[in-house]
Amino acid sequence: MSQIITFGEILMRLSPQGNKKFIQSNLLEFYFGGTEVNVGISIANFGGDVKHISCISNDFVGDTAKSYLQKFGVDTSAIVRSNRPLGVYFLEVGAVMRPSTISYNRSHSSFSEIQPSMVNWETSLEGGKWFHWTGITPALCKGGYETLKEGLILARKKGMTVSADPTYRKGLWKYGEDAKDVLSDLLNYSTIFIGGVNEINEVLGTNYSYSEEDFIEASKQLMQKFPSIEKVFDKIRTAVNSSWNKIRARMWNGKEFRETQDLDITHIIDRIGTGDAFAAGLIYGLQHFDDYKSMEFASASSALKHTYEGDVNFSSVDEVMNILEGNISGRLNR
Amino acid sequence: MSQIITFGEILMRLSPQGNKKFIQSNLLEFYFGGTEVNVGISIANFGGDVKHISCISNDFVGDTAKSYLQKFGVDTSAIVRSNRPLGVYFLEVGAVMRPSTISYNRSHSSFSEIQPSMVNWETSLEGGKWFHWTGITPALCKGGYETLKEGLILARKKGMTVSADPTYRKGLWKYGEDAKDVLSDLLNYSTIFIGGVNEINEVLGTNYSYSEEDFIEASKQLMQKFPSIEKVFDKIRTAVNSSWNKIRARMWNGKEFRETQDLDITHIIDRIGTGDAFAAGLIYGLQHFDDYKSMEFASASSALKHTYEGDVNFSSVDEVMNILEGNISGRLNR
Amino acid sequence: MSQIITFGEILMRLSPQGNKKFIQSNLLEFYFGGTEVNVGISIANFGGDVKHISCISNDFVGDTAKSYLQKFGVDTSAIVRSNRPLGVYFLEVGAVMRPSTISYNRSHSSFSEIQPSMVNWETSLEGGKWFHWTGITPALCKGGYETLKEGLILARKKGMTVSADPTYRKGLWKYGEDAKDVLSDLLNYSTIFIGGVNEINEVLGTNYSYSEEDFIEASKQLMQKFPSIEKVFDKIRTAVNSSWNKIRARMWNGKEFRETQDLDITHIIDRIGTGDAFAAGLIYGLQHFDDYKSMEFASASSALKHTYEGDVNFSSVDEVMNILEGNISGRLNR
Amino acid sequence: MSQIITFGEILMRLSPQGNKKFIQSNLLEFYFGGTEVNVGISIANFGGDVKHISCISNDFVGDTAKSYLQKFGVDTSAIVRSNRPLGVYFLEVGAVMRPSTISYNRSHSSFSEIQPSMVNWETSLEGGKWFHWTGITPALCKGGYETLKEGLILARKKGMTVSADPTYRKGLWKYGEDAKDVLSDLLNYSTIFIGGVNEINEVLGTNYSYSEEDFIEASKQLMQKFPSIEKVFDKIRTAVNSSWNKIRARMWNGKEFRETQDLDITHIIDRIGTGDAFAAGLIYGLQHFDDYKSMEFASASSALKHTYEGDVNFSSVDEVMNILEGNISGRLNR
Amino acid sequence: MSQIITFGEILMRLSPQGNKKFIQSNLLEFYFGGTEVNVGISIANFGGDVKHISCISNDFVGDTAKSYLQKFGVDTSAIVRSNRPLGVYFLEVGAVMRPSTISYNRSHSSFSEIQPSMVNWETSLEGGKWFHWTGITPALCKGGYETLKEGLILARKKGMTVSADPTYRKGLWKYGEDAKDVLSDLLNYSTIFIGGVNEINEVLGTNYSYSEEDFIEASKQLMQKFPSIEKVFDKIRTAVNSSWNKIRARMWNGKEFRETQDLDITHIIDRIGTGDAFAAGLIYGLQHFDDYKSMEFASASSALKHTYEGDVNFSSVDEVMNILEGNISGRLNR
Amino acid sequence: MSQIITFGEILMRLSPQGNKKFIQSNLLEFYFGGTEVNVGISIANFGGDVKHISCISNDFVGDTAKSYLQKFGVDTSAIVRSNRPLGVYFLEVGAVMRPSTISYNRSHSSFSEIQPSMVNWETSLEGGKWFHWTGITPALCKGGYETLKEGLILARKKGMTVSADPTYRKGLWKYGEDAKDVLSDLLNYSTIFIGGVNEINEVLGTNYSYSEEDFIEASKQLMQKFPSIEKVFDKIRTAVNSSWNKIRARMWNGKEFRETQDLDITHIIDRIGTGDAFAAGLIYGLQHFDDYKSMEFASASSALKHTYEGDVNFSSVDEVMNILEGNISGRLNR
Repeated sequence: MSQIITFGEILMRLSPQGNKKFIQSNLLEFYFGGTEVNVGISIANFGGDVKHISCISNDFVGDTAKSYLQKFGVDTSAIVRSNRPLGVYFLEVGAVMRPSTISYNRSHSSFSEIQPSMVNWETSLEGGKWFHWTGITPALCKGGYETLKEGLILARKKGMTVSADPTYRKGLWKYGEDAKDVLSDLLNYSTIFIGGVNEINEVLGTNYSYSEEDFIEASKQLMQKFPSIEKVFDKIRTAVNSSWNKIRARMWNGKEFRETQDLDITHIIDRIGTGDAFAAGLIYGLQHFDDYKSMEFASASSALKHTYEGDVNFSSVDEVMNILEGNISGRLNR
Repeated sequence: MSQIITFGEILMRLSPQGNKKFIQSNLLEFYFGGTEVNVGISIANFGGDVKHISCISNDFVGDTAKSYLQKFGVDTSAIVRSNRPLGVYFLEVGAVMRPSTISYNRSHSSFSEIQPSMVNWETSLEGGKWFHWTGITPALCKGGYETLKEGLILARKKGMTVSADPTYRKGLWKYGEDAKDVLSDLLNYSTIFIGGVNEINEVLGTNYSYSEEDFIEASKQLMQKFPSIEKVFDKIRTAVNSSWNKIRARMWNGKEFRETQDLDITHIIDRIGTGDAFAAGLIYGLQHFDDYKSMEFASASSALKHTYEGDVNFSSVDEVMNILEGNISGRLNR
Repeated sequence: MSQIITFGEILMRLSPQGNKKFIQSNLLEFYFGGTEVNVGISIANFGGDVKHISCISNDFVGDTAKSYLQKFGVDTSAIVRSNRPLGVYFLEVGAVMRPSTISYNRSHSSFSEIQPSMVNWETSLEGGKWFHWTGITPALCKGGYETLKEGLILARKKGMTVSADPTYRKGLWKYGEDAKDVLSDLLNYSTIFIGGVNEINEVLGTNYSYSEEDFIEASKQLMQKFPSIEKVFDKIRTAVNSSWNKIRARMWNGKEFRETQDLDITHIIDRIGTGDAFAAGLIYGLQHFDDYKSMEFASASSALKHTYEGDVNFSSVDEVMNILEGNISGRLNR
Repeated sequence: MSQIITFGEILMRLSPQGNKKFIQSNLLEFYFGGTEVNVGISIANFGGDVKHISCISNDFVGDTAKSYLQKFGVDTSAIVRSNRPLGVYFLEVGAVMRPSTISYNRSHSSFSEIQPSMVNWETSLEGGKWFHWTGITPALCKGGYETLKEGLILARKKGMTVSADPTYRKGLWKYGEDAKDVLSDLLNYSTIFIGGVNEINEVLGTNYSYSEEDFIEASKQLMQKFPSIEKVFDKIRTAVNSSWNKIRARMWNGKEFRETQDLDITHIIDRIGTGDAFAAGLIYGLQHFDDYKSMEFASASSALKHTYEGDVNFSSVDEVMNILEGNISGRLNR
Repeated sequence: MSQIITFGEILMRLSPQGNKKFIQSNLLEFYFGGTEVNVGISIANFGGDVKHISCISNDFVGDTAKSYLQKFGVDTSAIVRSNRPLGVYFLEVGAVMRPSTISYNRSHSSFSEIQPSMVNWETSLEGGKWFHWTGITPALCKGGYETLKEGLILARKKGMTVSADPTYRKGLWKYGEDAKDVLSDLLNYSTIFIGGVNEINEVLGTNYSYSEEDFIEASKQLMQKFPSIEKVFDKIRTAVNSSWNKIRARMWNGKEFRETQDLDITHIIDRIGTGDAFAAGLIYGLQHFDDYKSMEFASASSALKHTYEGDVNFSSVDEVMNILEGNISGRLNR
Repeated sequence: MSQIITFGEILMRLSPQGNKKFIQSNLLEFYFGGTEVNVGISIANFGGDVKHISCISNDFVGDTAKSYLQKFGVDTSAIVRSNRPLGVYFLEVGAVMRPSTISYNRSHSSFSEIQPSMVNWETSLEGGKWFHWTGITPALCKGGYETLKEGLILARKKGMTVSADPTYRKGLWKYGEDAKDVLSDLLNYSTIFIGGVNEINEVLGTNYSYSEEDFIEASKQLMQKFPSIEKVFDKIRTAVNSSWNKIRARMWNGKEFRETQDLDITHIIDRIGTGDAFAAGLIYGLQHFDDYKSMEFASASSALKHTYEGDVNFSSVDEVMNILEGNISGRLNR
């Protein structure tokens, strides 16, 4: 019985230490991640009661992935196992004008065998209040799409809040379905849209610009097409280079447009998972604060993630609130 | 134009440092290996002129694998690239009564896309004298089998020596062909058989025991069925435990049976690739020594491999000869 | 609701990598341990349903300790926090004739503040079947003794099995109580005695030798004094040196004396926690096997622990059973 | 016979590599530090003749601490040992808007047993010219206060210069004395005050602001109350965030007010001990330069410390002077 | 048969991890470098066909150096061996206002034994199109000068392009020849001059300033004295501090003066070899682009090098072109 | 004023971690060593008052070497500096039948510039009681021989005990003097001979065997030729392989022959410096025990050294005595 449900593939991330390249290294650090589980772990670090549902490998790598989630207090009891290996991704962390590079080994992973029959949604959603999904899951395989859809239908039936982060990644979507159709289908069961004009354009087939006016217009059109959607939250990144970014957020909640100040992230350690930290912050926030403060919380959560290695946001609620209170000087508290 | 040709999958090996388990680690050492390329690199370390043929991923992991072979002077010019990821295997190195454990992620790897059309055997075998293959390649995928067969046919036409290490691994062989049939087909193009009664029983469907008599009998029956085979070399391991083994070898070359003394390996560092080091030693040996000395060389080469981390045998000819001369006290030469 | 309850201090262990000394290092590996929690985690690794109860620090070190237990699936919900730091121990791992050395910083640790009022035994023991305690806890502080005693009284009232490992460590026991009195008091609530003639002599004030006869006699006298004790299990270590030991076990269960064969551990990696692995194996065993097989299981579990770094036994039931079946050659299973 | 005497607790510092958190690590780097010994080692690195007096643990951790000081040429002959463990602190190094976090395990450390009878001040101060103390020592324990006071009385009798860095840390001061009273008592034996309006307000119970006027006024009032104090030096930090700070200094020497330019520290590696590097630079400076140049030297010394991991300033006099000469471009000298 | 020839000493570089100093470390990372081989490897990483000629030690260190070049596909067949050890340099990487420091152990290295008789230039330059040399080689030893000169004479006879990077380093040049005379002698065989007014002043004995006018004037005078020189390319670095530099380039090709924009390198990882990356970029560029674009390519290549540890530029042509197209935001491409 | 004087080159040792080879590594551990300084540090670890005299490089590597000695409390005040680099040696640690390999870079090191004028023997030997030298120093360079001889003459004049370890290493001795002559010259000033029949044969030009009789005979003849020599101590190693050796010692003190039991070293970690640990144990022993116990102490000291990484013996007197008392089971003392 967990209040917050995340569902999606767990990947093993392998990257050389610091900013090294594979060719100059013989050691790799490993973490586990995946956009939905990153959100789940981050919420657990905020003190949330989270269950992650997935299909992982039936070997010591899968065991290690499972224990990684447990370490953060995430409930793993609904995770199923398959005989396929866990998905892996390789990462070289860039710096300054050198971008990070990434290579995936996930297309025949254990998660690709997920089928609706493998998840008991009835049991899994018992006591649940919030369901979070992203566009990665339905992009991976038909079983992912179908399993997710079953979960969403039940979640809505139970009156759960459903947040959607319909990230569109062209490289995936190889099993024959049309991304736009599938995402639209799933958005019918969603109440919070985490994305900006890019994602809306993808789903609606529109061509909105980044302007404030267009963002509002796009949000309105999205809500018209998907009446269950109540609020749209967008994270905006301005990149000086790989090592130096700025983050802010904006929203349209059906009534008002709001936008936060830029947070200046001058010495980035790891950019992976910063969008997931935003989603996690938002989900936590909307359960505790008003819309604007939730968005500020999400933004600060995302900014803090840039200071941690790995996919996961380790920050606590106190640490995020500290930033909302303007304490960004990093003063050591003895 | 290389004299010695090896053909087979290149895998990335990932294992925690020392004898750690994945669950107690966040760092993995990586090496590249694969039974045939291990043989190739080991021969290159003996000063041999080796070309390895394979299909690897078209990303920075594949680049790193390629550069790994080049590091040892192995010719990589015939390696082709595919859009599938490089195969990976995960390893936990055991100790004492704890066995090592291994988990493969190779079944949809870049090598699984190999097709006869991708290798120009005519060019690749130009100037070649020796072709080495193992039972892993035809077990992986039909394309592996067919591509290998094309190469073997040409190799024999050119009068090259062909060594076969028809290791049978049940976990592979999933694409619909029968192991016994396929291995038999390929043994028709082979001249040196590296294997013992287990492997012969597998191919002949017999049931020979480990006794000297049975080994000779089995070898004779093998040569009868596959007249191209001239010699059979077998490596025998006696294991006290994961950390302490003994190695010896025996042979039937159609005329005489010979057997070496046990080499006592009291403090094993890494057992992976020790069979490949035996094959490499044998291939090098048979080009320079008589049959018995070749087998002794192979045996010492294999014993030395137990003292190196990773899949590769780093020992030089001098280092192996040193052991043949009885210098096993490890005395430091200043 | 967990079936198996362990209670005791959690310590942070800090040791240089491999066999290095502090003076030649600037890096320390850390693990968490403590005799009772080692038992708990080891049983969890066998698939047992374990809750560990303790008092840890209210800082990021305590957080990390807690997440360490969760990683293995141990229930941490009854762990309380104090403002004192977590106990620490420093370890230099010896080799050959060089003994390991250890230095404790635990006497004013967070656990030293434990008080009966801090643990809700009624809730904690709900559904419990087994309670394990050791002589370390009552040795540390009066609060440890009193809290433990409350738990034991309730455990026995509920009919739980209580295993006692009354290890006597002279260096502790500084708060004014007499070890013999306290241990005797607690043994009144115990049913399984894990210890040998040393421990019995300590409690009874006797002077039995290591002989089989004396072991049986001592066990009988122990059971006479503490009628709740039904079985005595003893682990015997023969040390060639720090790197090479042999392990066997013997028992008196009121009816028969049995003794296992020696297990030869030729290349020890870490000796810490091998007694705890014995206890864990025994507790798991007695829930699934007869007395002799339980003792064999415990012995093999202990032997395997010597091959893992850290305090914890990572072996699974399958891995232990594998040894009971005589597979000690460490053969890799591909 | 050393010219410069420092007295205070030596702590072991334990922190994960880089900016990692404990929860994502299993390796800790260790250094030794403590505000007074940091000053001592830094002066030794400038070529000064330093003796540090302390009480450390009588185990291999204490041995390692002692050898750490010897490594830098600090005289350890007056260090005494106790049976309590060495104090420890745990540190997570922050980045950007994430502050570093710290957790102490020092309240029952070996130093907490220090007593006046354990230090032979007569012998220890033989040949001494300068004594440095900080507000940490009298805050830790009564023995620390009393032992320090004995040393200060003798130091002044011998005409030694006494520098005081009366840092006030609320979290300490638990043994019953009032911080203001104790610090005032000790300032009566001091000639150089290293601190700003915060520290003066603490001691005088005043409420001065950071303005130049208030700094001068506060300094004057301080000198009036403690006539032995001749000069006041203040370090001012402006923090962009955890990774980017600016440092400057100002002084009132009874005659004139001076202030240095800001030094811009754009990529901080480690902020711990930067105040101690300032004090060390000042103590070295005042023995070789005029007041203003001493303050500049102290400021550059502190700025350089931000580029070293650990508590210690490794910079030499040449390296500091190089910055005073305006060479801050970091040009490599081949 | 390689198209591009580099000739010079290979050094082993040893530096502590990150920004640590030797005194606080017990681990050193090693790479191989040397100004000319850095250029060679960087061109090989651009896909160039490179042969490096050198004299290295006849031990496992030399073997490792050779395999390091092979890893990048550099032809090592013309490398000769001597019984002297490989040259070594020790490096401490600075940060912010702390400069890196370097210490060489090269004056009696294996390369110092190079003699014209050891290199078969006729064979080595077969098929060659470009020869690159620097002022380090003739500075090291007379044999270096004489061997290089023989190579240059033949290169020019064959019509190869010859690029000269006549870096002048005072600390070298100890074998009795005058730097100005030797460099002038060798410039007579060169067609591309990679250097600025400093280098020109050194060779001509002039005193030009950094102004645009002076740069043009100096270039003209240089070309007058050495009529084979057709183009002059200069890299200009503006250093905020050790961690933050800007890079731009300018040129005089006999017809026009051009200058690139500054590239802002805000978080430098390693500055060693950035000049060599410029030279490599230029050599690659001039074979594929016009003069201005070549200079831009060189500049971006140099900027990217600041983001890699070690001496070598790992960037590919695509990665450099990406920057020329204005993509400096480091956006991750999934 | 130190009681024990050692004189000789300090080398930096560089070796990959564990048993790795250079070609499979990019990290090297470094230590400082050299036969005489190993003896000095080991005696300091026994509590001896030691001064080491040497000539080291005037750079950060030399600084680090100096601080390394200070760490162990060795007096470095008589160490001089030169502009040549510190000597270096590279080591690959073998295992089982694989010998360790070593490569030196010392022939033009800072020590090779030592001259009698650089050492003030009068001051350095003040208060000295024991002088230890080895055959490495006079083998390195004429200045080494001459400087050492001056020291020995004065040492004998002052009545100091002089121990000689006249190890003969053919690879050295390149400056023109005859080893036999030089060693004989220096033995005239020596009182304790640490060596066996190999060393005696080298000096006397004899051909004694390893038999007890021959050892006694050889010792007698040695004492006849060099009447100052009072005692001969020999260490005998029996090697199973690189990982497993046995050590014992024998002596002739002019009156009686004695021989110790073998110490069985089953899991060697590092064999470098084990002879130096023997010498150190002997020197310490002869100052505190009778001849036989000294030899036993030396033997156990040497055996313990096999369990430490690096050149240095870290064992304390208590740890050695523990072995003399028969405690070789490595039992942990809590």
